[in-house]
Amino acid sequence: MTTITFEIADQLIVGAGIVGLVFSYFQFGFLNKMTIKPQPTTESSGLTMLDSKITEGLFEVYSAISEGANTFLDAEYKICGTFIALFGGLLFCLITWSSTMADGIFTTVAFVTGAVTSMVSGYIGMKVAVFANGRVAKAAAQNHGEKQYIAAFNMAFRAGSCMGFALCSIGLLVLWVLLTVFKMWFDVSDYDMMMDCISGYGLGGSCVAMFGRVGGGIYTKAADVGADLVGKCDLGIPEDDPRNPATVADLVGDNVGDVAGMSADLFGSFAESTCAALVIAASAQDMRDAGWSALLLPVCVSAVGIIICLLASFVATDFNPVRCKAQVEEGLKVQLIITSLCSVAASVVLCYMLLPTEFVLKGVASASFIATPARVAGCVSAGALGGLAIGIVTEYYTSHSYKPVREVAMSCKKGGAATNIIYGLALGYLSTIVPVIILSAIIFTSFTLCDTYGVAMAALGMLSTLATCLTIDGYGPISDNAGGIAEMSGMHEDVRDCTDALDAAGNTTAAIGKGFAIGSAALVSLALYGAFVVRLGIDTGVNILEPLTFSFLMLGSMLPYWFSALTMKSVGEAAGAMVTEVKNQFAADKRLFEGTAPKALVAANREKCIAISTTASLREMVAPSALVIFAPLLTGTLFGVYAVFGLLTGGLVSGVQLAISMSNTGGAWDNAKKFIEQKLSDDPELKKGKGTDVHRAAVVGDTVGDPLKDTSGPALNILMKLMAILSLVFADYFWSINEGRGLFNVAVTVARRI
Amino acid sequence: MTTITFEIADQLIVGAGIVGLVFSYFQFGFLNKMTIKPQPTTESSGLTMLDSKITEGLFEVYSAISEGANTFLDAEYKICGTFIALFGGLLFCLITWSSTMADGIFTTVAFVTGAVTSMVSGYIGMKVAVFANGRVAKAAAQNHGEKQYIAAFNMAFRAGSCMGFALCSIGLLVLWVLLTVFKMWFDVSDYDMMMDCISGYGLGGSCVAMFGRVGGGIYTKAADVGADLVGKCDLGIPEDDPRNPATVADLVGDNVGDVAGMSADLFGSFAESTCAALVIAASAQDMRDAGWSALLLPVCVSAVGIIICLLASFVATDFNPVRCKAQVEEGLKVQLIITSLCSVAASVVLCYMLLPTEFVLKGVASASFIATPARVAGCVSAGALGGLAIGIVTEYYTSHSYKPVREVAMSCKKGGAATNIIYGLALGYLSTIVPVIILSAIIFTSFTLCDTYGVAMAALGMLSTLATCLTIDGYGPISDNAGGIAEMSGMHEDVRDCTDALDAAGNTTAAIGKGFAIGSAALVSLALYGAFVVRLGIDTGVNILEPLTFSFLMLGSMLPYWFSALTMKSVGEAAGAMVTEVKNQFAADKRLFEGTAPKALVAANREKCIAISTTASLREMVAPSALVIFAPLLTGTLFGVYAVFGLLTGGLVSGVQLAISMSNTGGAWDNAKKFIEQKLSDDPELKKGKGTDVHRAAVVGDTVGDPLKDTSGPALNILMKLMAILSLVFADYFWSINEGRGLFNVAVTVARRI
Repeated sequence: MTTITFEIADQLIVGAGIVGLVFSYFQFGFLNKMTIKPQPTTESSGLTMLDSKITEGLFEVYSAISEGANTFLDAEYKICGTFIALFGGLLFCLITWSSTMADGIFTTVAFVTGAVTSMVSGYIGMKVAVFANGRVAKAAAQNHGEKQYIAAFNMAFRAGSCMGFALCSIGLLVLWVLLTVFKMWFDVSDYDMMMDCISGYGLGGSCVAMFGRVGGGIYTKAADVGADLVGKCDLGIPEDDPRNPATVADLVGDNVGDVAGMSADLFGSFAESTCAALVIAASAQDMRDAGWSALLLPVCVSAVGIIICLLASFVATDFNPVRCKAQVEEGLKVQLIITSLCSVAASVVLCYMLLPTEFVLKGVASASFIATPARVAGCVSAGALGGLAIGIVTEYYTSHSYKPVREVAMSCKKGGAATNIIYGLALGYLSTIVPVIILSAIIFTSFTLCDTYGVAMAALGMLSTLATCLTIDGYGPISDNAGGIAEMSGMHEDVRDCTDALDAAGNTTAAIGKGFAIGSAALVSLALYGAFVVRLGIDTGVNILEPLTFSFLMLGSMLPYWFSALTMKSVGEAAGAMVTEVKNQFAADKRLFEGTAPKALVAANREKCIAISTTASLREMVAPSALVIFAPLLTGTLFGVYAVFGLLTGGLVSGVQLAISMSNTGGAWDNAKKFIEQKLSDDPELKKGKGTDVHRAAVVGDTVGDPLKDTSGPALNILMKLMAILSLVFADYFWSINEGRGLFNVAVTVARRI
Repeated sequence: MTTITFEIADQLIVGAGIVGLVFSYFQFGFLNKMTIKPQPTTESSGLTMLDSKITEGLFEVYSAISEGANTFLDAEYKICGTFIALFGGLLFCLITWSSTMADGIFTTVAFVTGAVTSMVSGYIGMKVAVFANGRVAKAAAQNHGEKQYIAAFNMAFRAGSCMGFALCSIGLLVLWVLLTVFKMWFDVSDYDMMMDCISGYGLGGSCVAMFGRVGGGIYTKAADVGADLVGKCDLGIPEDDPRNPATVADLVGDNVGDVAGMSADLFGSFAESTCAALVIAASAQDMRDAGWSALLLPVCVSAVGIIICLLASFVATDFNPVRCKAQVEEGLKVQLIITSLCSVAASVVLCYMLLPTEFVLKGVASASFIATPARVAGCVSAGALGGLAIGIVTEYYTSHSYKPVREVAMSCKKGGAATNIIYGLALGYLSTIVPVIILSAIIFTSFTLCDTYGVAMAALGMLSTLATCLTIDGYGPISDNAGGIAEMSGMHEDVRDCTDALDAAGNTTAAIGKGFAIGSAALVSLALYGAFVVRLGIDTGVNILEPLTFSFLMLGSMLPYWFSALTMKSVGEAAGAMVTEVKNQFAADKRLFEGTAPKALVAANREKCIAISTTASLREMVAPSALVIFAPLLTGTLFGVYAVFGLLTGGLVSGVQLAISMSNTGGAWDNAKKFIEQKLSDDPELKKGKGTDVHRAAVVGDTVGDPLKDTSGPALNILMKLMAILSLVFADYFWSINEGRGLFNVAVTVARRI
């Protein structure tokens, strides 16, 4: 047992965590100042555009969303809970069997801790989002002109940062507690084993993220696609119309999918890349000798990231607030750029501060290599700057301010929906080029500088802006929801215009966030894959031209397709069920279409739609999740680690491409539609806006893009990461079967002798 | 200089080649019996449904198609000729510089021979198709009932086999001549160098195939999509309506894209897999010692394949002729099954006949290994049977006789075009699962049995049914064209029904053919990749976890996306131009829509449409072709062979998935539309056929699917193969730069020293 000291790394981590939490609480206080419950007296705060009917309507929708989101998350978390218990048991048994009981216990504890932390993250994210969206709508309704933008933007942005900082701080502090507690049981020389156990934390986070992403993704898009199809195409009622009973389900979906899912996903990335870096670092004698603070450098990078994001967030809300439509997107982008640049500077300082001047690490390209603070700092910087570059390129391909999306919009004129789809798909394929080149450059740089450890540090560099990313990611769906609430509670058109502008910017920045998420997922997976190889002690590298490895390379690269097919079809089916339900409702009672139906009926109908999304998403999330979890497990058990190498490589390379192209295609279609709706084009046909053939063609694209960009695409990130961390955690177990050659090895040996 | 002997392998190859040519000539004679030119007297052959006006119309359309196809091919071949001259020069210089002048000369001769043979193949294919399509229409028009199907099917099938056997035989004979001529200059101990030179043959074939596939693919789909959009969507005139001026361009496209492109593609596969096998075989001392016949086993497998296909073709046309709609698809499938099974048997005999009982080969999984006839026969069988299995699975996913396509058709009802697209994309993703599993199993089996040589032999096994595949592939577009001609020359509806049934079956079998093409392309690429590694003498395998290799793995897997984006956008743009042109024509003269315009105007308008397709496809084929050709060349030159390893691996694994999903998605949409049009469903809404909202939704899917299944998807095959054979041919050159480490290695070395 080691004595507990409070070294500089501990100070940094705990300090940053607490500051982040306090800041988050401060932001929440700001949100909480506004009451959303209808007051007995009329509102008195300055100029008010809200009569009591609107206030009541607002509260009604707000409550319905909150209830729907709670119901879903409760149901989802019950499933997660069961899974954690079962899988935790399996984990404990397999690790204990292949290693020691102590290893089994520690890994399982870390796994459960990670899973619970991820669930708490998702829960907090969802709660804050649901809490804030009505308030953003109200803020926009209570103000005019410049003030309207400042008030609404600040409300949405603060809500996003309340969530972002809470998540980052909690993730960081929990990991630190886990590390500190584990430290008491392990000798310094056994830190490598300890870090193996710690990687259970990443696994737990990742498993829950999988359910959150897939379940939430199916929920939100089933509702969205269903609402779109029935509203715009069949009945001809506008988006978010209060008469459409699927709208509330759609708004709930934004919270459980885009917020809770995304939060869990990014938390997973943070946890996994940290674990990968820790495992590799601790496997080297030099690093263990260098002390606790040097070992904890990966965690410190994230800690400093929180502080930087915190300081930068004042720029958006206080120093240079957003005053009009045009400034929203810019405001968010400035945030990202400032945080990226500052974290590069900070990480350089950190590396020199915490690391020894020269140390030997284990790697996969070469069995061991010499690292220096300069090299590590180079890796972190490459990741941070590369991430920024990927974000900017993603924006270019998905914002309607640039040529690609405008071309897609124009194609609606040429040949309707068909050319729109062709151009959109082509745009998605095209948009993989530069991000993949950047990613390859980051990989090459960091891999060359510090082997696998470098890749993990590059991932952490990219994720050092995590709090800002989460802020921006949360901001989008909150604005979107605010718009929906404004529409449904019958607020002035002006309010919807304001929230639409916030949402459009959110859409673009969400695309940037997706770029970050994919890029970091690719780096994290590679880092974990490298850690897996290091962990196994294979220092000859991975020969891809082995029969088994190459065959599984093919199979691995097929998995993202399989996975996407499952999730997309689920969305299609659930959306179809939604359409049928709404059509039946409208057929059953004419008053629904006229808007004169009694409140109770409307509420009951809305609940039916919510139930469809909830049931469908919970049922449909099982198959894709099982695919991702059991593919590496079964492969490793049956065919051994050389097959797993192929599987991981294939899943990674094919997943990245598919994820980027899906996300960007979907984003581009969405914004091409908005480009036409907002009449931003000079073209006379595109300028006519809604209700034209051109617009209808654009809506088809938008609808197809929904499951691509919000269900299948983002879930592929988790596919890559989860397969890799699973392999890492089960490395010992795989090795224990026939020295990592799997159960079928016997058969192959016989075949080879023919 | 070796004395020329005429060994058993020579006898087999020359014999099979000559028999194939004679058979092809005999089939041509059958076609030639029917005159297509309007006769001064009325037709006298039995019951005739043709008045002189129809006969004249038939001849007119027939001539227009023939002329259009000639014009395009002439223009395309001019570009090819220039390319061959320039690239041949480059090849000569680089090979001479890195090796010897003799090597340079031989490789360049082989390259030019391969390129010219491929051009001749495409030319013959196109000529036969153009020659036959009018005759198929006439055969259908001159007969009734059962006789109509027998006559029309036989005519189309004979045309297909005329083309298929001519191509296979020519390819085989030319390669044999090349081998025999080269043999006079090389010592037996230098056969490895000789085979390196021979691989220029594959490169030449592949380069021309690239232009043919991409150029032809863009041509045919620009015309098809353009004609569809303008006809069905905007003006509401049916498919192949004589008033639509884009129809002739569409019909020309079927010939230059689906026939000439496909012919060149499959010829390339044959040439490349043979070259891969020859290079690996000749690199082993044991194999060179075993003699010329053992060395030529790969060529013999193809030779025997011709004979088997020939015998099997009598089953379709004579023993068990097709008598009605339902039998068409079955007839074609039986062909494939018979040929696959027989070639397995024949290849086993061949291996035992030609190979020594035990011999040592060079490999990549292990530096050298012992092979036996049984093992080699196992590889060939795995390829042949696996190919068949892939074909059958592909059919399941693309024929409207099964659930997947019917589900896609039903989805048109649920939510229109949007759900159709979502379901179609999901189907394509889903359809990768089983083919990739089969492919992995083939790779694993053949790789385990005989390393790279085994993979090459598996590819040849899959291609042993080449003549049948080409027959079926040719048959489809010929029937399609016959239908178009029947429609345009105003033949009886009954004729169109017959050709439609032939075409629908052709569509499904074309999908099977695409499955074969993708599967064989994957095996061929892997075999070439393996040959490349063997050629370089690297016997430590390829460590994928090298910074450079992994970075280029990412880049390589991005290339198929880049390539697809370019080709799809080209189709979209050319189709848009076509739509604009047709709309302008109709706006300029009302008589066009009424069908009363003077003949000269109609002809002139049609020519304008043909010109649009021709110009667009020739302009647009340059960028994607350049991408594929220069990507490995530049990578090798700048970053060295370890980067090329990554590039090839990435392009292969990502290309296979994308190609399968694109082809099947497109095929499924096409047949879902046909399922609705032919009123085959029990569902009341789907049964209404054309003109409904459901049908319009299906048409959107079909239109989007066109460039996926006929332009981008199939061209990806060539991307994989061409990159691999380029690397193989330039192996020496790559190695000559800094020992295969490329020009940038210096910079990296410096960076590593930081």
